[in-house]
Amino acid sequence: MSILVVGSVALDTVETPFARAEETLGGAASYFTTAASLYSQVNLVAVVGSDFPQEHLEFWRKRPVNLAGLQMCEGRTFRWMARYHMDMNARDTLDTQLGVYAGFHPVIPDEYRSSDLLFLANIQPELQMEVLEQAHTARLTVLDTMELWIVTAHAQLTEVIKRVDILLMSEEEVRQYTGRASLVSGVRHLFDLGLKYVVVKQGSYGALLFSADGSFFSAPTYPLEEVIDPTGAGDAFAGGFLGYLSTVKPGASGQYSVEDLRRGVVHGNIIGSFVCEDFSIGRLRVLTMDDVAERYRVLVECSHFDPHWHFGG
Amino acid sequence: MSILVVGSVALDTVETPFARAEETLGGAASYFTTAASLYSQVNLVAVVGSDFPQEHLEFWRKRPVNLAGLQMCEGRTFRWMARYHMDMNARDTLDTQLGVYAGFHPVIPDEYRSSDLLFLANIQPELQMEVLEQAHTARLTVLDTMELWIVTAHAQLTEVIKRVDILLMSEEEVRQYTGRASLVSGVRHLFDLGLKYVVVKQGSYGALLFSADGSFFSAPTYPLEEVIDPTGAGDAFAGGFLGYLSTVKPGASGQYSVEDLRRGVVHGNIIGSFVCEDFSIGRLRVLTMDDVAERYRVLVECSHFDPHWHFGG
Repeated sequence: MSILVVGSVALDTVETPFARAEETLGGAASYFTTAASLYSQVNLVAVVGSDFPQEHLEFWRKRPVNLAGLQMCEGRTFRWMARYHMDMNARDTLDTQLGVYAGFHPVIPDEYRSSDLLFLANIQPELQMEVLEQAHTARLTVLDTMELWIVTAHAQLTEVIKRVDILLMSEEEVRQYTGRASLVSGVRHLFDLGLKYVVVKQGSYGALLFSADGSFFSAPTYPLEEVIDPTGAGDAFAGGFLGYLSTVKPGASGQYSVEDLRRGVVHGNIIGSFVCEDFSIGRLRVLTMDDVAERYRVLVECSHFDPHWHFGG
Repeated sequence: MSILVVGSVALDTVETPFARAEETLGGAASYFTTAASLYSQVNLVAVVGSDFPQEHLEFWRKRPVNLAGLQMCEGRTFRWMARYHMDMNARDTLDTQLGVYAGFHPVIPDEYRSSDLLFLANIQPELQMEVLEQAHTARLTVLDTMELWIVTAHAQLTEVIKRVDILLMSEEEVRQYTGRASLVSGVRHLFDLGLKYVVVKQGSYGALLFSADGSFFSAPTYPLEEVIDPTGAGDAFAGGFLGYLSTVKPGASGQYSVEDLRRGVVHGNIIGSFVCEDFSIGRLRVLTMDDVAERYRVLVECSHFDPHWHFGG
């Protein structure tokens, strides 16, 4: 099945306590597209400026990535600059230059309209809504967002949340959006908006999958020897999550099972862990499905424990 | 099997963003003793002042807790005061009054010498070493510590680490002690000191068990609806961990298996989650083994995922 993604394609400059990378390929849609195209065809909707390096387009053309919806405009590509703290779960954004995103409106090409899954990566809620109105036949819609929109576009974001199946949010974003200190209570509030699932991203601590029926799943993470750059880990998580689901045939009801979703979250954690092993999409470029399968095996092994216990053993 | 614990018994005043509790029973050894005595006999070594409320002693006397090693001295009981941030994974210590702990030296009563397991709760490393020299027949020795000793008594702490089997440390403490940004690399450095296992506590995110043979285990946590007070969660974790192990008969080699340790870490997470549901030992007072078994069942259910996957299911 094919996946439609709308979001940012950018050039990132990133500093960690140990290294720096300048003007590398970044943006939520870039990470997502590269990750999800390991699994299925990805139909990309985004915009780049006239300064966008051709090599990135050539890389995507070698993969099952459709670029018909990638707008090329006169002007500068979106730029983002950030610096990570010693604890790389935290960072400061140093600069954001919207460039051609300032006037961007997503246009879904006709050939994308049959996309089975839709990922609304982190862009303005009003643009996400424009996409939903053009692509209402997707069987599964997944939404990502960020603090900026929670603070500046709360009402519009709420309207988008009401129209999707699954919301991805970091733990802090759930607290900010719902105004509740308790994550569990915040997630319950989110379900009042009609969501089927909420995935809470916890950085290097993994992810939690909450279902509207009250069940939850705590997915293990792969403890990395060395984190080079966590940028894009959440977007790559989404790429592994939807990428895996795109390979699954939903049941007779047209719905994915909770077991499908659980495997999807594990794939998300796996792809999210790989992306941290290099700057930009460096690790994803060379990642194979054998690498993914091996890390899946390790995650099973490192999270399994005896379901039965009694005193004495 | 019986467990010997040495550590602090205190009176705590704790403020959270939502409530405050004054002069309640606190201290690492209090949490540990109350938790571990759900499983086995606990032999307590600590000191309290002449102002220590008798009701706490009466509570422990109703449990399998031996108080022969609890010194009663003229003077004030150890006091600790702290305030939690909105994110209750972080807190500030507002005041510490050592009181009778200022001149404390642990003395192990003869009747404690046959204790099978030894827990060195968080006190000065030189006192922990005094205990190790008096109780060298324990089949398993487990060490806890804190930032203060990492900073002010690094060399003495290292000597203690070299003499125990298992070290419990928070993620930040591993980074501080080893000076390495990578947790995995820091843990490897700890194994150079001769440890068999390292348990990395991650607050509300659970715990990781690393083995000297290179394997690791990521234990799920129970997502609480409401955290009332996280004080003592690490000590209660240790109580559940050693408490569970105290019920297990080690193999022919006299060693616990990795599976035993994994179940122990899950018990630790369970007891650690319960303690957060009330101030002080409030929740542990009324906790039953049925409550523990039910939460164990939930943790199995919420962390299990299909060990096999293939495209399409």
